[in-house]
Amino acid sequence: MTKPANLGSSPMVSRDSGGSLVEQIVRSVACRIDDKLLRTGSRMPSIRQFADEQKVSRFTVVEAYDRLVANGYLESRRGSGFFVRERASLLNNLSPVTQPLPTSQQPDVVWLIRNMFRQLPPQKMPGSGLLPHEWLDGELVANGLRSISRLNQNLLLHYGTQQGFLPLRQQLQLKLAELEIAASPEQIVTTNGVTQALDLVASEFTQPGDTIFVDDPAWFLMFGTFATLGAKVIGIPRLHDGPDVAKLAELAALHKPKLYIIHSVLHNPTSTSLSAAKAFQVLKTAEQHDFMIVEDDVYCDMHPGSAVQPATRLAALDQLNRVIYLGGFSKTLAANLRVGFIATSHQNAIRFSDRKMLSTLTTNEICERVVHKILSEGHYRKHVDRIRSKLDTARHEVTSRVEKMGMQVEYRTPAGMFLWVETGTDTIALTEKALEKGILIAPGSLFSPHQLPSTHMRINVAAMGDEGVWKFLENELR
Amino acid sequence: MTKPANLGSSPMVSRDSGGSLVEQIVRSVACRIDDKLLRTGSRMPSIRQFADEQKVSRFTVVEAYDRLVANGYLESRRGSGFFVRERASLLNNLSPVTQPLPTSQQPDVVWLIRNMFRQLPPQKMPGSGLLPHEWLDGELVANGLRSISRLNQNLLLHYGTQQGFLPLRQQLQLKLAELEIAASPEQIVTTNGVTQALDLVASEFTQPGDTIFVDDPAWFLMFGTFATLGAKVIGIPRLHDGPDVAKLAELAALHKPKLYIIHSVLHNPTSTSLSAAKAFQVLKTAEQHDFMIVEDDVYCDMHPGSAVQPATRLAALDQLNRVIYLGGFSKTLAANLRVGFIATSHQNAIRFSDRKMLSTLTTNEICERVVHKILSEGHYRKHVDRIRSKLDTARHEVTSRVEKMGMQVEYRTPAGMFLWVETGTDTIALTEKALEKGILIAPGSLFSPHQLPSTHMRINVAAMGDEGVWKFLENELR
Repeated sequence: MTKPANLGSSPMVSRDSGGSLVEQIVRSVACRIDDKLLRTGSRMPSIRQFADEQKVSRFTVVEAYDRLVANGYLESRRGSGFFVRERASLLNNLSPVTQPLPTSQQPDVVWLIRNMFRQLPPQKMPGSGLLPHEWLDGELVANGLRSISRLNQNLLLHYGTQQGFLPLRQQLQLKLAELEIAASPEQIVTTNGVTQALDLVASEFTQPGDTIFVDDPAWFLMFGTFATLGAKVIGIPRLHDGPDVAKLAELAALHKPKLYIIHSVLHNPTSTSLSAAKAFQVLKTAEQHDFMIVEDDVYCDMHPGSAVQPATRLAALDQLNRVIYLGGFSKTLAANLRVGFIATSHQNAIRFSDRKMLSTLTTNEICERVVHKILSEGHYRKHVDRIRSKLDTARHEVTSRVEKMGMQVEYRTPAGMFLWVETGTDTIALTEKALEKGILIAPGSLFSPHQLPSTHMRINVAAMGDEGVWKFLENELR
Repeated sequence: MTKPANLGSSPMVSRDSGGSLVEQIVRSVACRIDDKLLRTGSRMPSIRQFADEQKVSRFTVVEAYDRLVANGYLESRRGSGFFVRERASLLNNLSPVTQPLPTSQQPDVVWLIRNMFRQLPPQKMPGSGLLPHEWLDGELVANGLRSISRLNQNLLLHYGTQQGFLPLRQQLQLKLAELEIAASPEQIVTTNGVTQALDLVASEFTQPGDTIFVDDPAWFLMFGTFATLGAKVIGIPRLHDGPDVAKLAELAALHKPKLYIIHSVLHNPTSTSLSAAKAFQVLKTAEQHDFMIVEDDVYCDMHPGSAVQPATRLAALDQLNRVIYLGGFSKTLAANLRVGFIATSHQNAIRFSDRKMLSTLTTNEICERVVHKILSEGHYRKHVDRIRSKLDTARHEVTSRVEKMGMQVEYRTPAGMFLWVETGTDTIALTEKALEKGILIAPGSLFSPHQLPSTHMRINVAAMGDEGVWKFLENELR
C-alpha cells in the first residue's frame, strides 16, 4: 500500500476561525488539491490518522471526506481508503463544445421573459411583474417549510396525489365559496403556477390551427405558450370596464374561437376590472358562439373589494359550466413555491389532471403543503391586507409623479399593482436604452397579441423606489 | 352594537389537554358553531374580553380568531369585531353539481397510473415503481428543507432562474463527468422530474404524426405523453443486452423516427443494461437514419458499476451531440421533490429551457436547493450504496421464491429493482383480481407500446415483503 499523502504539519482546523470543523477541513484539503500540493492519485491519511493528527473526532473526518468525494476532490476505494482525484481534469479534460448563440436583435416575448429572470437588482426592474422582496413575507414561507420538515418524513418521500394535496383543495373550496363560486375539491386541480394551468387548458381544448382570444393588451407569456401549441391568438380590445363586447361578438362570429382568456379583476397590465354588465355580455357571447372562458384570477387577493372597484367573477355567474377559473399564489406569497390551481367541472378536472400527469406526473406536494399551512393558519389575510394598503400609497405617489412628467396613466384605477402608461414615445427603443443602464422596462408591444409597436409601458408601482430609474425616465421622456 | 355571543361558562382551554392553546380555542369555537350553539351572525366576544374570560393572552386569541376566519367559521368586520359565519351554508348552499364519471372497464395506461397514486398501503403494491418509504431516507430530505428555511428569506420568494438552480447544475456537471459525459452547466436544464423532461424533448423535436421509437417493453407513462402530442409510438424489442438492432435498423428505414427513447442501464421493466457493442450500433443506426436518441438514466444511481453489469452510456460515446441525456432523483431521494434534468447541447438547452418557461415558467428552486444540498454534502453516495446492497438481498430472495412458484424471471440480471416475470397467465385478468383484494400489480400489457395482451408482469423486489401478496400470487398462479 502506498504511503499516505503528506498534509504538512500545520493544523487544518482552528476553533476560532469561521465555519464548522467539517467545513474547515473540506476547504483546506480542497485548496491543497487545487494548488497541486496534494498529488493526484495519492492516498489520504486514514480517518483515524487524520483525526488524531488534527485533534478532531473521527466523525468529523468522515463527514469531511464524504463531502470531498461528493465534490470530486477525493475518490473512495472500498477497503483501501481515500485517494486524491484531479478535480480540474475531471471537468476540464472533457471540454464541452459550446457554440456562441445567436442573440436576438429585436426584443421579443422570449427576450423580455429571459430578462425578467436575469439577476438584475429588483429596484432596477420597474417592468417586473412581482412585488419586491420586502413587500412579501419570507418568514411565512420559511415557517411553512420548517413545519413541513417536522412532519412524518414518509410524507415527504412519495408522489403527491394526482389532483393535488387534498387539504389545500379543501381550503381553496372555501376561498372560492367566498367569491360565490361553488367548487368541490374534486373540481380543483393544482398546477405549477397559473402558467401550467393555461398550458393544460389550452392543450386540452385546442388543436393546432384553432383560435384563442385574449385581451389586448394582455399578459405576454401566454402568447408564446399558445404559439407552441399551434393556436392562432387574437386580441379583444380591453376598455376601462372590460372588453369591447361589440368587437368580441364580431370577432367571435368571424374566427369561431375555442377559448377566451380574460382577467376579470385587476387585468394585467391595465389594473381594470370587469363591470357586472360586461360580465353578463361576455358570458352571453360565449354561449352564443360556443367558446369556453378561462378566467385568470391570479391578482384576486390584491383586489380591495367591490366597494372600491367592480369585482364580478365570471365563474360566480356561470358556476364553472362554461368558465374555467385559474388562481395562484405567486404574486402574494412566493413565485418560487409554484402553486397555482384550476377550478372547473368535475369532468374537466379529470381531463386536466390526467394531462398534468402525462406532462409533469404530479405537482410538488411539499410546496402545496406549505401554501395550505399558510392559508389555514390565518396569517395570509392580514398579509394581503398589508400589501393592498402599501399598494394604495405607492400607486398614489407613482401616479402623481408619472403625470407630473407629462405621461398619461390610462384608466387611473383605484386598485392593483400596475399602471398602464402612455409615454408618447416608442417603448421598445426606450427598453433597449434602459437595459444598457441595467434597468428592466416592460414595453407595450410585449402585451400586444401581435407585438405591434406601442408607446405604452407597464409600470409596477411597488418597484419604483429607485431614484436612478426615475432619473433615467425623466431624462429620456423630457 | 349587538351583545356578544354567549360562549357558556365552561373554560375552553386546559393546560393539560392536547394541542396548543390556539388549537384548543379553534377546536372549541368551531365545534360550537358546527353544533349551532353559536348562532350565525352573532358577534364574538372582543379579543380582550375572550382573553380575560379564558385566562389566555390576547395574542393567543388573535391567532385563534385569525385561524377561524381562514377556515370560514368567523368573519372579521373592520372596526366592529368578529362575527359567526355559517360555514356549512357557505359551502353547502352552493351545491356543486358533480356528474358521476364513466369508469373505465378495461385497465389502460391512465387507469394504472391513477391507481399508482391511490393511497393503497405500500406493502400491497408489488407493481409500484418506487422504493418503499423505509428504504429511503426522509431525514435527508427533512434536513434539506430545514436548512433551506434558514436561508436568507428573499431567496425563497422570487422565481428561480430559467434553466434551474445554478449550483445544482454545477453539481450535476460533476456527476456527469464521472460518467464520462462532458456537460457545462449551460448545457443542463432542470425539470419537474423525468416526465417533464420527456414532454419537453418530444414537444420540441416532433410534430403531430411523427414517429417516436421506444423500447418494447418500456415505461408506460410516456406512451400517454407522446399520444397527447399526436406522435406515433413504435416499440423496438428489448433483448438481454439492449435493443434488437437489426429490427431497429429495419424499422428506422421504414418509419423515419424523430426520436428513440432508451434506458441504457437498468431498463424499466427488465433491469437489463446495454452492452458496449449494442451501444455503438444504436448510435450508428441513429446517425444513418438521422434520429435523436433520448437516454433516460433515471435508474443511474441504482447501478452497481461495470464490474457487475455493463454500464455504457450512449451520451459518453456521443458527448451530447445526437444523444439527449435525462436524469432525476425520484427513485433514490424522493419522488415528491420533483427534480429531474436534461443534459444536451447548449443550443438545445436554450430551446428546452424556453419551452419549459412557456409551459410551467420555472421549476421549483426550493426543491432544487434541497437536492443540491444533499448531493454536495456527501451523504447521498452512502445512501445509494445502502439501497443497492438491500436491493441485492431482496432480488435474490424474491427471484428464488418466484421461481419456486414456477414463474420464470426473464434475464435474471444482477442489478436493479425490477424483475420481469413470465407468469404463464394473462396478467390483466390477474391485475383486476388483485385490485379487488387491494393489491396493485403492474401487468405486462401496460409496458407494451401497443398494449398487447401479455403474460408478463413487473415485480418491484423492494415491495414484496407482504405475505398476503405472496399468498394471493400463489393462489392465483398455482
